[in-house]
Amino acid sequence: MRLEEIIAGFDPRTAGAEMHALVRELFPICRSITGDGVRRTLEILSRRQPIEIREIASGTPVLDWTVPPEWNVREAWVRDPNGDLVIDFRSSNLHLVGYSVPVRRRMPLAELRRHLHTLPDRPDWIPYRTSYYKETWGFCLSHRRLESLREGEYEVVIDTTLAPGKLTWGELVLPGELEDEVLISAHVCHPSLANDNLSGVAVALFLADLLAGAERRHTFRFLFIPGTIGSIVWLATNPEAAGRVRAGLVAANLGDPGAFTYKRSRLGEATVDRAAARALADAGAEHALEDFVPFGYDERQYCSPGFNLPVGSLTRTPWGRYPQYHTSADDPDFVRPEALGGSLGLYLEVARILERNRRFLNLEPRGEPQLGRRGLYGSLGGREEGRERELALLWVLNLSDGEHDLLAIAERSGLSFAQVSAAADRLLEAGLLQ
Amino acid sequence: MRLEEIIAGFDPRTAGAEMHALVRELFPICRSITGDGVRRTLEILSRRQPIEIREIASGTPVLDWTVPPEWNVREAWVRDPNGDLVIDFRSSNLHLVGYSVPVRRRMPLAELRRHLHTLPDRPDWIPYRTSYYKETWGFCLSHRRLESLREGEYEVVIDTTLAPGKLTWGELVLPGELEDEVLISAHVCHPSLANDNLSGVAVALFLADLLAGAERRHTFRFLFIPGTIGSIVWLATNPEAAGRVRAGLVAANLGDPGAFTYKRSRLGEATVDRAAARALADAGAEHALEDFVPFGYDERQYCSPGFNLPVGSLTRTPWGRYPQYHTSADDPDFVRPEALGGSLGLYLEVARILERNRRFLNLEPRGEPQLGRRGLYGSLGGREEGRERELALLWVLNLSDGEHDLLAIAERSGLSFAQVSAAADRLLEAGLLQ
Amino acid sequence: MRLEEIIAGFDPRTAGAEMHALVRELFPICRSITGDGVRRTLEILSRRQPIEIREIASGTPVLDWTVPPEWNVREAWVRDPNGDLVIDFRSSNLHLVGYSVPVRRRMPLAELRRHLHTLPDRPDWIPYRTSYYKETWGFCLSHRRLESLREGEYEVVIDTTLAPGKLTWGELVLPGELEDEVLISAHVCHPSLANDNLSGVAVALFLADLLAGAERRHTFRFLFIPGTIGSIVWLATNPEAAGRVRAGLVAANLGDPGAFTYKRSRLGEATVDRAAARALADAGAEHALEDFVPFGYDERQYCSPGFNLPVGSLTRTPWGRYPQYHTSADDPDFVRPEALGGSLGLYLEVARILERNRRFLNLEPRGEPQLGRRGLYGSLGGREEGRERELALLWVLNLSDGEHDLLAIAERSGLSFAQVSAAADRLLEAGLLQ
Repeated sequence: MRLEEIIAGFDPRTAGAEMHALVRELFPICRSITGDGVRRTLEILSRRQPIEIREIASGTPVLDWTVPPEWNVREAWVRDPNGDLVIDFRSSNLHLVGYSVPVRRRMPLAELRRHLHTLPDRPDWIPYRTSYYKETWGFCLSHRRLESLREGEYEVVIDTTLAPGKLTWGELVLPGELEDEVLISAHVCHPSLANDNLSGVAVALFLADLLAGAERRHTFRFLFIPGTIGSIVWLATNPEAAGRVRAGLVAANLGDPGAFTYKRSRLGEATVDRAAARALADAGAEHALEDFVPFGYDERQYCSPGFNLPVGSLTRTPWGRYPQYHTSADDPDFVRPEALGGSLGLYLEVARILERNRRFLNLEPRGEPQLGRRGLYGSLGGREEGRERELALLWVLNLSDGEHDLLAIAERSGLSFAQVSAAADRLLEAGLLQ
Repeated sequence: MRLEEIIAGFDPRTAGAEMHALVRELFPICRSITGDGVRRTLEILSRRQPIEIREIASGTPVLDWTVPPEWNVREAWVRDPNGDLVIDFRSSNLHLVGYSVPVRRRMPLAELRRHLHTLPDRPDWIPYRTSYYKETWGFCLSHRRLESLREGEYEVVIDTTLAPGKLTWGELVLPGELEDEVLISAHVCHPSLANDNLSGVAVALFLADLLAGAERRHTFRFLFIPGTIGSIVWLATNPEAAGRVRAGLVAANLGDPGAFTYKRSRLGEATVDRAAARALADAGAEHALEDFVPFGYDERQYCSPGFNLPVGSLTRTPWGRYPQYHTSADDPDFVRPEALGGSLGLYLEVARILERNRRFLNLEPRGEPQLGRRGLYGSLGGREEGRERELALLWVLNLSDGEHDLLAIAERSGLSFAQVSAAADRLLEAGLLQ
Repeated sequence: MRLEEIIAGFDPRTAGAEMHALVRELFPICRSITGDGVRRTLEILSRRQPIEIREIASGTPVLDWTVPPEWNVREAWVRDPNGDLVIDFRSSNLHLVGYSVPVRRRMPLAELRRHLHTLPDRPDWIPYRTSYYKETWGFCLSHRRLESLREGEYEVVIDTTLAPGKLTWGELVLPGELEDEVLISAHVCHPSLANDNLSGVAVALFLADLLAGAERRHTFRFLFIPGTIGSIVWLATNPEAAGRVRAGLVAANLGDPGAFTYKRSRLGEATVDRAAARALADAGAEHALEDFVPFGYDERQYCSPGFNLPVGSLTRTPWGRYPQYHTSADDPDFVRPEALGGSLGLYLEVARILERNRRFLNLEPRGEPQLGRRGLYGSLGGREEGRERELALLWVLNLSDGEHDLLAIAERSGLSFAQVSAAADRLLEAGLLQ
């Protein structure tokens, strides 16, 4: 099916509800940068598309990094002097600092406190903390709970394994006519956090599902990877594929109710940057365009100077700018089905622009071709009606000089990409473009 | 005579009155893209300058087009069931749709109505309609008149000829020192419409008249052509001259009381674009600068990608932005003598800038030359008076490095072109420039 | 000592007071473009740094100019009909028009008046006037004094010598690792005027004093020259040194209480232009950036098209924009110690940026290097504290691609130059940059 038809048939409401159900299903799983939580997550995603599960052994050198040991959790809890459970990993996996080493000890509250993390400003929320590359342990809890703890001796049990194993990620390639690739990357390393980044995972998966049914010009590659180390592993082990990336998006924070923000690639004016800006402008809703900065998600790695890939990041509210970010309040209720549906619609539109954008050549460049005798122009001079379609034809003819692609024509004319690309179709049919 | 002297002696009031008289004389003639109306118009113009009348046979292929058959009108009218004349070409040539085929029939009002065009929002005005490239017929009338028509059988007579003949245009070349050409193009295909475009025709003719008496560096070519097909014919038949065009203006809508608008060439930064912007800025009056769009007048053809000539359009209120546009209200009373005079003055100023603009070379580029001993600089340091003339000298010296022309020096310094070019004259005399 | 340490130990208050004392000491001397006043001034400056005194003979051709005769004043006064002294050079050297020829005559007031200059709008101030290149004579006085003069015969004595001699200037070179030069130029030709330009002279001298004690990458050259003819002489006689100038500043008007203004070099985007803009932005105070114009001080000569050196001018209130400019009100009370101290601090900061600005190469450009294991990155993910230093590291790594210098990284990131250059130091130590 042509992508145009898929877009025409796309129902954001149904898709939004389905993505939200997926977010709810994935939410309880304890994910980290390695371990069974990621494997379980990828299995669930694979129900919808045949995602290839890939692994790399702990200790493998990758670029300037080393694949870390694998981490898994059996249980983790703290009992107060009365023997009551006051912190329990089972009730929220955020309670345990990611990559905590095993512990089985009794200690006074004063000593325990040095391992406890809270958010005094948000006394009911549990923060999210990790320590991947320095061996330590800790618990996160609500500040209110911390304040209720009495002096005395506490029992601390962290039954984790941190040992040589594998780092796991998922990869899905949808081949196209061209070897040129479009990369969609989502991080799958966060435990019970819904917007960051189950929303991005869900949108990426559903986009893959729609594109899988479309005729494709580009090859689309979807990565479900642990943040930072995952993109480093992928770049280290796939230099040829990296070299074929013509456009890419890091998908995250796509379920909150905020407006869209597009963060440009380091290149700044790459096709994906122009395509995202155009899709946002054509959508007519409030949005922000921001320049690349070398922090954020995996675009940090894709846009490092030695790769400098044309990869931006299209989100709703960016990381760190909503209070629920990296806390227990980023739960499935914070994420909205209609926000997920709208995000998927926007990703589809960017995909359409990337697929349709081309540079054409006007075959009758001397003077205007006579559109009237080809049925492309109103016959009665002096009337204003029905002009917009004609204007789009004139713009495409005038700027199809081998230097302007359809995006440039849309930018220059102020017409939408859809208008410009429909005009190009009509002119192609009329034999006026090549 | 030097152009400077002609400009010094130019009286916009007298010229405006004469141009307005010409507009009144030309107004009643029924012009179209071919036919006797154009010939009659060019004859009248030829009284003032020896315009060469050129013709091309119907059916000749020109670029992607074909020269249309020639159209002439003997009479055209409609009588109501009582035999009363309710529409008559004789009272306004706008009544007849341009290029209407011959008709001699009786028909009920319902059938006639399908061929009648009105402006419901402007019930007293007659619209202007044409159908050059699709054979049909029709009448235009005021909406009030349409509403007064009673049911019954109407007699319709359109006594036109639409047959192989010629397409006619006028051309005037004023040779200069250089083969490089400045093109002034005005369309002569509109019947009784004063601002669009008898105003442009008049300003172009009077500009030619003034430049004919001047020493010229550039060759100036004036085209009085039917819109669209005329420029296509000219481009098709004069590719060498087209290749020599260094600057050009499409002259239209120059008699209404509105502010000036300059529409840039497709190149955007061509000398003519900078010259027009400078002339408007130096004039100090409100004006607008707009980027090229591929619709409008004959700049559409000159700026098609296969020619891409440096041709802009300098108008007062652009087409379609005043209510009288393409209606019977665009009559000689809508056009003002003082507006025509001011327009001609501005065209003269653009011509002066194009003629005078050059790139000079400072012959004493290391340090400032000592202007004082050449009598070009005040001797008593510490005073501020009389500085502006000295500043112009310093700007011209500093920027005459082979990269900046006088326009660039005016743009950079904020001085007027007149100040900068006067400074260049003084420095040339002093042997400091080349 | 490293420049960083000198800057850390710099006390603007003490330096400001010392500079102000120097301004007071130099103020009474009658300087001009030649003569003993300049020699006496340079002697005083030489107490602090071994300034080389250079001279060139009157009549020597220099570029398009000729070195003028030397001018010295013994006395100059006017007595009224009663024999009372009404104007006396001894009370203010501004009273005598610079380069006045000898006169010893009696004349009626009417004739005398033609040689008298006043400021009617500022009736208590004496203006400053010169006539270097046209032989004449005159006196400047307050308008109030002029109005008090009675009719009658006046005695006029101007005992000056205007004869072949020398033009004198001072030059100080502080050699650095590189032959590339930074030029600091101050004019020393103004008599009793404090802000213009004893302030510039003082700041340049004290800057030299501080840089003399620092390890230097660039060679710094300080010029204490008469305005216009001095820079022309220097350019004419030092073409090789001129060719080594990589950055330069004309120092003037640095003691008034106004905000800073940086006037860009003719190149507009030279390193010095970016360095001055960055120093001003990092200082956080109100300031203005202006494009080059070919009038002002000696930047006119340095930026003439045949040299086109990267020399800007960093001042407080620019010449001609404060009422005291070129009048007796520009006295040592108008100049403030704290303004001088702040100006010197800013010049130091520009010097630091010029010295420290470089283009580095990220040696781990593929992906981010793992900063954590190098102790350069917080180990506990999810916290926001201490981030700014890490961001600076990420910016420097991301943009050290061989195209961006540290200034460009500061401009792009919005970080201060100090933050960026400290990050570069840490990365150099870690072996991540080259």
